[in-house]
Amino acid sequence: MAFESRIKVRFGDVDHAQIVYFPTFFHFFHSAFEDFFDEQGYRYRDSLDVDRVGWPAVHAEADFRKPVRFGEWLDVELRIPKVTEKSVTLDYVVRLEGDVTCTGRVIVACISMDTYRGIPIPGKYRA
Amino acid sequence: MAFESRIKVRFGDVDHAQIVYFPTFFHFFHSAFEDFFDEQGYRYRDSLDVDRVGWPAVHAEADFRKPVRFGEWLDVELRIPKVTEKSVTLDYVVRLEGDVTCTGRVIVACISMDTYRGIPIPGKYRA
Amino acid sequence: MAFESRIKVRFGDVDHAQIVYFPTFFHFFHSAFEDFFDEQGYRYRDSLDVDRVGWPAVHAEADFRKPVRFGEWLDVELRIPKVTEKSVTLDYVVRLEGDVTCTGRVIVACISMDTYRGIPIPGKYRA
Amino acid sequence: MAFESRIKVRFGDVDHAQIVYFPTFFHFFHSAFEDFFDEQGYRYRDSLDVDRVGWPAVHAEADFRKPVRFGEWLDVELRIPKVTEKSVTLDYVVRLEGDVTCTGRVIVACISMDTYRGIPIPGKYRA
Repeated sequence: MAFESRIKVRFGDVDHAQIVYFPTFFHFFHSAFEDFFDEQGYRYRDSLDVDRVGWPAVHAEADFRKPVRFGEWLDVELRIPKVTEKSVTLDYVVRLEGDVTCTGRVIVACISMDTYRGIPIPGKYRA
Repeated sequence: MAFESRIKVRFGDVDHAQIVYFPTFFHFFHSAFEDFFDEQGYRYRDSLDVDRVGWPAVHAEADFRKPVRFGEWLDVELRIPKVTEKSVTLDYVVRLEGDVTCTGRVIVACISMDTYRGIPIPGKYRA
Repeated sequence: MAFESRIKVRFGDVDHAQIVYFPTFFHFFHSAFEDFFDEQGYRYRDSLDVDRVGWPAVHAEADFRKPVRFGEWLDVELRIPKVTEKSVTLDYVVRLEGDVTCTGRVIVACISMDTYRGIPIPGKYRA
Repeated sequence: MAFESRIKVRFGDVDHAQIVYFPTFFHFFHSAFEDFFDEQGYRYRDSLDVDRVGWPAVHAEADFRKPVRFGEWLDVELRIPKVTEKSVTLDYVVRLEGDVTCTGRVIVACISMDTYRGIPIPGKYRA
């Protein structure tokens, strides 16, 4: 299963070196995660506000292979290689016209938004 | 009365033209407002979370006179020329080594964080 | 003539009050401007890098009518009411499902990216 | 050798869950790196613009232990455990009133800003 989100690099997404500021790639990862969530039929915001279930990152990493510049369109691929009782592993590959520019992994915990404590992932989100 | 906050321009604060991305100046304005608030002895966050009083912008404007680059230190001056029953006018002057680079004005309303409706500014905040 | 760009409010676009952080609206304005530019057939980045023509904001203002929350889709309408010899006025209306949430105006100067000085707008950009 | 930078969490640094948006921690890491650089007597911007030496991230990772909220002051500790011919490893520990909230590592390459290719780290930066 692979989900793909398309993201345009904005004028302010770059740094003084005129390439995408590296923290912004993690923002792109999260944007793809939001899109993935929304496309499953559960809105991400409803998970937090209605179900009171949150998905904070407990670990994040990325390898940056090629610089990306303002104005490019990126394809952000999301795969979910692993789901444990209380966490989900999200793997990302970012491509520019087919070339991999960046790969990454984010592990999110499942928490109650009321207690900020870890909880078992509710069944409806397991799919 | 003038309050001053000192802000360093960060690597990612600029755009592809290698000058501060103009929306970031509004972020600098707000950062100075937060500092001003905190220095009055009421923490901004407590205003929202404890007193349930919020201060959303209803109007914002700025004139940009000179480009500012990464690594500069800016002095952000904040003055409050006007306080009405339910709003506060905040005037900003941003200087780089004494030279004005940007001026701005933000009008914030006073609202209840429970209803998101305008309320008269509580007495404790009028000072 | 009206151009419209559709923008999704991201998880990190909001502030502690859980509404879009007001400087972010200026970022949305600029994103629509970039899209407009790209759709005219000249890429914004090429204007800067190839033609060495930049478009920095000299004035920006906005009125915020309704708070916007994470996950919403916004329609950002861009109109150009005025073009002078060396500047362009850009008017924005941001709507959420038809309701106006924010209006704004940004005046950009036309400059040489080599001198950072104002220049007459080249004919190819006047259209 | 440990360098420390103090960073205030801003109103817009958080996400819809009202905690620091995780990509922002990488921004905090980079801000500390900039401060470290500037304090060595070489300005980071001069490294890029004058010496034409850049330091893009090739790898970044972080573990997030505790959520951080708007208004907090964070102490970002930077250590440099390893310097190879063409790269530098930067280790970060972020603390809130002494408690570790986040740890991270960023590996930056040393490149020529003219060719965007890796180069041996110039002697003046090795200290």
